[in-house]
Amino acid sequence: MTRFADRTGPIRLGMVGGGQGAMIGSVHRVAARLDGHFRLVAGALSSTPDKARASAADLGLAEGRTYSDFTEMARREARLKDGIEAVSVVVPNHMHLPVAREFLKRGIHVICDKPLTGTMRDARKLEKAAAGSDALFVLTHNYTGYPMVREARARVARGDLGPIRLVQVEYPQDWLGEVPDPSNKQAAWRTDPAQSGAGGSTGDIGTHAWNLMRYVTGLVPEALAADLQSFVPGRELDDNAHVMLRFEGGARGMLWCSQVASGSENTLKIRVFGEKAGLEWSHDTPEKLRVTPLGGVTTIVTRGSVASDPASLRLTRIPAGHPEGFLEAFANIYAEAAAAIRAARTGAPLPPGVHFPGIAEGVEGVAFVEACVRSSRRNAAWVSL
Amino acid sequence: MTRFADRTGPIRLGMVGGGQGAMIGSVHRVAARLDGHFRLVAGALSSTPDKARASAADLGLAEGRTYSDFTEMARREARLKDGIEAVSVVVPNHMHLPVAREFLKRGIHVICDKPLTGTMRDARKLEKAAAGSDALFVLTHNYTGYPMVREARARVARGDLGPIRLVQVEYPQDWLGEVPDPSNKQAAWRTDPAQSGAGGSTGDIGTHAWNLMRYVTGLVPEALAADLQSFVPGRELDDNAHVMLRFEGGARGMLWCSQVASGSENTLKIRVFGEKAGLEWSHDTPEKLRVTPLGGVTTIVTRGSVASDPASLRLTRIPAGHPEGFLEAFANIYAEAAAAIRAARTGAPLPPGVHFPGIAEGVEGVAFVEACVRSSRRNAAWVSL
Amino acid sequence: MTRFADRTGPIRLGMVGGGQGAMIGSVHRVAARLDGHFRLVAGALSSTPDKARASAADLGLAEGRTYSDFTEMARREARLKDGIEAVSVVVPNHMHLPVAREFLKRGIHVICDKPLTGTMRDARKLEKAAAGSDALFVLTHNYTGYPMVREARARVARGDLGPIRLVQVEYPQDWLGEVPDPSNKQAAWRTDPAQSGAGGSTGDIGTHAWNLMRYVTGLVPEALAADLQSFVPGRELDDNAHVMLRFEGGARGMLWCSQVASGSENTLKIRVFGEKAGLEWSHDTPEKLRVTPLGGVTTIVTRGSVASDPASLRLTRIPAGHPEGFLEAFANIYAEAAAAIRAARTGAPLPPGVHFPGIAEGVEGVAFVEACVRSSRRNAAWVSL
Amino acid sequence: MTRFADRTGPIRLGMVGGGQGAMIGSVHRVAARLDGHFRLVAGALSSTPDKARASAADLGLAEGRTYSDFTEMARREARLKDGIEAVSVVVPNHMHLPVAREFLKRGIHVICDKPLTGTMRDARKLEKAAAGSDALFVLTHNYTGYPMVREARARVARGDLGPIRLVQVEYPQDWLGEVPDPSNKQAAWRTDPAQSGAGGSTGDIGTHAWNLMRYVTGLVPEALAADLQSFVPGRELDDNAHVMLRFEGGARGMLWCSQVASGSENTLKIRVFGEKAGLEWSHDTPEKLRVTPLGGVTTIVTRGSVASDPASLRLTRIPAGHPEGFLEAFANIYAEAAAAIRAARTGAPLPPGVHFPGIAEGVEGVAFVEACVRSSRRNAAWVSL
Repeated sequence: MTRFADRTGPIRLGMVGGGQGAMIGSVHRVAARLDGHFRLVAGALSSTPDKARASAADLGLAEGRTYSDFTEMARREARLKDGIEAVSVVVPNHMHLPVAREFLKRGIHVICDKPLTGTMRDARKLEKAAAGSDALFVLTHNYTGYPMVREARARVARGDLGPIRLVQVEYPQDWLGEVPDPSNKQAAWRTDPAQSGAGGSTGDIGTHAWNLMRYVTGLVPEALAADLQSFVPGRELDDNAHVMLRFEGGARGMLWCSQVASGSENTLKIRVFGEKAGLEWSHDTPEKLRVTPLGGVTTIVTRGSVASDPASLRLTRIPAGHPEGFLEAFANIYAEAAAAIRAARTGAPLPPGVHFPGIAEGVEGVAFVEACVRSSRRNAAWVSL
Repeated sequence: MTRFADRTGPIRLGMVGGGQGAMIGSVHRVAARLDGHFRLVAGALSSTPDKARASAADLGLAEGRTYSDFTEMARREARLKDGIEAVSVVVPNHMHLPVAREFLKRGIHVICDKPLTGTMRDARKLEKAAAGSDALFVLTHNYTGYPMVREARARVARGDLGPIRLVQVEYPQDWLGEVPDPSNKQAAWRTDPAQSGAGGSTGDIGTHAWNLMRYVTGLVPEALAADLQSFVPGRELDDNAHVMLRFEGGARGMLWCSQVASGSENTLKIRVFGEKAGLEWSHDTPEKLRVTPLGGVTTIVTRGSVASDPASLRLTRIPAGHPEGFLEAFANIYAEAAAAIRAARTGAPLPPGVHFPGIAEGVEGVAFVEACVRSSRRNAAWVSL
Repeated sequence: MTRFADRTGPIRLGMVGGGQGAMIGSVHRVAARLDGHFRLVAGALSSTPDKARASAADLGLAEGRTYSDFTEMARREARLKDGIEAVSVVVPNHMHLPVAREFLKRGIHVICDKPLTGTMRDARKLEKAAAGSDALFVLTHNYTGYPMVREARARVARGDLGPIRLVQVEYPQDWLGEVPDPSNKQAAWRTDPAQSGAGGSTGDIGTHAWNLMRYVTGLVPEALAADLQSFVPGRELDDNAHVMLRFEGGARGMLWCSQVASGSENTLKIRVFGEKAGLEWSHDTPEKLRVTPLGGVTTIVTRGSVASDPASLRLTRIPAGHPEGFLEAFANIYAEAAAAIRAARTGAPLPPGVHFPGIAEGVEGVAFVEACVRSSRRNAAWVSL
Repeated sequence: MTRFADRTGPIRLGMVGGGQGAMIGSVHRVAARLDGHFRLVAGALSSTPDKARASAADLGLAEGRTYSDFTEMARREARLKDGIEAVSVVVPNHMHLPVAREFLKRGIHVICDKPLTGTMRDARKLEKAAAGSDALFVLTHNYTGYPMVREARARVARGDLGPIRLVQVEYPQDWLGEVPDPSNKQAAWRTDPAQSGAGGSTGDIGTHAWNLMRYVTGLVPEALAADLQSFVPGRELDDNAHVMLRFEGGARGMLWCSQVASGSENTLKIRVFGEKAGLEWSHDTPEKLRVTPLGGVTTIVTRGSVASDPASLRLTRIPAGHPEGFLEAFANIYAEAAAAIRAARTGAPLPPGVHFPGIAEGVEGVAFVEACVRSSRRNAAWVSL
């Protein structure tokens, strides 16, 4: 690619959304900063001008690079000699399409939070926008940045488990277990169909679980049957989902996601069972992968250990026994994006092993949400994927 | 009751099934012996006379109390002055009805392994036989004998969790992950529809999971949708089941049981989530109950601790920190049975707190299996319970 | 041996101590009963006649076999045709010698709780009594009855760890963290030098830790340096001990035992580190043994698994994943004793693999306590063993 | 202070040591970068000019700010208008004094890796240099940056545990379990008395354990008795240490550190037992703090939970259930340093709660090492502190 062929050094990064008090914006900034691949230089951190300014000042952004209108930001940054090369999009779901499109069409790489969009219609439009752009589109399904998730995937791929029979994936939380305080903005937009889309828990965390399952196993889903619930009075979107899965080739699975599972913090977990062995990864102990042969002895593979596959060693910063966590995994997605963005400067191929979730994973995620909703409305009938 | 009004001291026990090499027969004997409530004095340990004799000799049974024909045993023991007061039935599922009936009709108490029967038709007949007898019928859903399962139940019942929203129960094993060796008798009958009934994993372990869920939560099931599989080539019965559950009042659940989950030993686990708190019990750490309020701090209640409910303290033999396990839990069912049998001698009421699974739980378990099979045949349609 | 050459079937057992309310007496009875090797037929369960009678009645002992005087019991049982073949001694430490001696000198096997005695002087006398008797002397260092402890020992012995460098053993409890209620008889005698001997925590649980360390590693101690404390006001005996260890050949270790470690239930734990690998066993998860090579991947060996050594399989009753615990481990010591007692009937050699702690382990344990006390009085100077 | 009174925004940072291949230099850089408080602008990353240049280029340092001589760097940076305001010192122990002194005397803040120095003599000199400078001295005892370590300290300080009786601290690793490969530079200098100082494992990790114990408990040590070993043939410095501790007021403790504990990755762990409760924190699960009252029920406090003390909430970046780890804890030390450096610009007081390990903790650590060596040479005699 040629748009940024002359660039060297850290990637100049912009951000849309992520103003004061936004959790995920802060996570994206740490992730971008952690390895030194990016430098945040511009932002439309809020659509409210005052808040946009105050948020930008907190982060030390120059006034001239502070915006409250993302379209203006895209337009202007695209013209600057030292304009941003990539933008992080950390706005509510319904804004992913309009924001991302503005940057994509100007050749600015997009790193976008999940789910891709709130509706399948938007997802298709964004897919088209990405296809029509030279710029990269990176979707932060950050859990695939965990080294031991990559280890799990590598082991499945190299056949350690034999043909897969079963996958059990779950993602329980409890932070929406009650009617949220009206001041809780994160809760507000996530429970609002207009901003969040058709899915509640299915969109916000179910897509992570789905993506993790797809990423680790490579299984191709055929159909799902979903029973969605909204337990909290007055809630319009699902806050809990029970899903049964069927895959090509006969494998089967279950997926559970919940935002009302009292006492659960954020315990994404996957278990995969093949003819020869099973494995288990839990976000509660992300540095460990349990692998157990049929009828055999459990081994606990830790990040950075001698038994690690190159696929996980690639993402290891510090020695075994020095816990890495959520921010490092998130930073791994940014590091993968950085490697791709750098390669794109000159049109070089991706360095070996580099990969990240993109538009296809995003479309799939939204399709999963819509399939869940469709199935649930039909009393958990099987719905093709 | 009057049949054994004159008896005192240990309960004279007979056993049908459980000859040499049988795992579950041995478990029942230890369970009966552990607290000294029973004395094994008679047995039809095998229907093969030689094996019956040899097995009885191993156990020190008198020759005159050694049988190979359970009907003859029932008949003769009922006439003996020191005949058995109770019998343990540890034969394959299809034999539960004919064996139990012979003893019930003679007023001899029956302690029967689960599932109740292989078919609903048999279950109804056995229900009738039990209803028509003065004798007790005890079904060894032994996991309800774990003190911390009772603790879980007590806490749900006293409202610690608030109204229940969700229950997740699972029972993975891997011992049938391959075509079993033909010499493996336990595998042979469990995978044979003629002996096991309509359910494979659903009957053998799914009924345990179901019973545990019912016991702990008290939730009343309305309907289930089940997707059953037989992964191992040539297998006629299910070896894996995915089930979605709906309860009266709006609670929802999932149940998973598997005999092909590679790397799983015997990890029955239940999680219950209410409006106020959640709890978790796993057979892997049976002495611990995790309880966590919505958004709060996890407490780990151990058997015998100051925080224990009387319901679990009743079943505690040794101090906290001295692990009890499977055999003690099984023995607790026998101890409950013994308390009931002793009360029955004089017609006294059951001592406070004493309870055990019986015919109703057994009928329910078989109904669960049949509902799973029916639902699965109809492509996982919802089936009423 | 000939004393009981005519006996067959279950071993007739007596008990001294273990009356109403005694925890350890009840444990011994369950352990004796669990596998059906013993039948309790006589007892001097208390030296208070009324309590002795009531306790015996609870257990269904015949009146004629109920004693309050252990000497009379020994004398009379030795003369009975169906007299006891073995006796369980579950009295406070200072009574182990006088009680055991009465039975040993009459050729009745003794199964004695630990520590062997309260003083080294008594230990030597009991050693002599045992040496002069045809009867067996079994000391219930019950933790060596855990299958995974045997697994640990087998793996050290077969060289899996390479030459041992380090051993860390600890046994924290908290039940004596405050001045005990005067009605707590178990606390009373254990904190009384006249009944307990020179050691408090060192005698009651330090000897278990010491024995476990010796049993698993086979290391020969050369010297120890001990710093003992009595934290609870007014306590005469140690309630906490810090000990450094030196072994022949250069290995080193630490031992910690405590009865005032607030929040600790009964967490005996051993870790052994060799040149090639390390292992860990904890009483909190007794069914698991962690083994990790130098720089390598942890394996979790469970009881009854394919990776098990015959040494642990010998003691396995039920399949992997069905937790065994404290009572089963205790029963394993009784089962080993039973095997030895049966062999003794005819003078047959011990069956392969059968072994149990005896007088030598007992003398060693008391020597450990006395060495700790001596070292601590000399300001934790090194004391030879 | 006035030296940097005109500065605003990120702190310009230099680094001495930490060239290509150095693990700890990279950790410091991530820690400095993670929260955006620092910008690395200068470095003497190696004393070998070519390596210094190449390492600086990797990091994007300007050529004019690239040095191979730390004295020249200190001199020149002190004169630059935009010279560094702080320097990270990540060289072997014996170089801490000469390097730190050059910057301290020019008023440049020093963030130095531990242990403070290789010898007590050097420690006293560095103490003097720090006392004579306006600049801050920060020692990266990074484990005190873990939120749950701060939680532990806060709970001890507020009296939750009651008066402390016991502390058990351990730090096992196995990476020096064999003669290291000569190319392993990190192993080389750490096992060389000339560079590492008097302590091997005691200096490298024992000082961390010691500091953690001091930090959490606040106990004042009176004396220690240490038994040091060098297990690996040819090793001059200790690779394992067993230490008994006595504190003012009667508390007691044990400390174990090892670099030859086969199968141990990096499992720093502390347990504190008071009259009322005990607590446990392990580096293996750094987000959790176990707290258990005497005889009571364990609670597991997680980072960011409702039960958290403000002392740990201050250091929390992301919600509970999103694991933070080693780099975040390290970054917390840098964040504390940044807060102090910013306050120093204007002479403002430290913001509430801000604190970090400094020269006093460093001197104490070296004193600990020297006391261990002295005690061990005297056969583990008690040595005053």
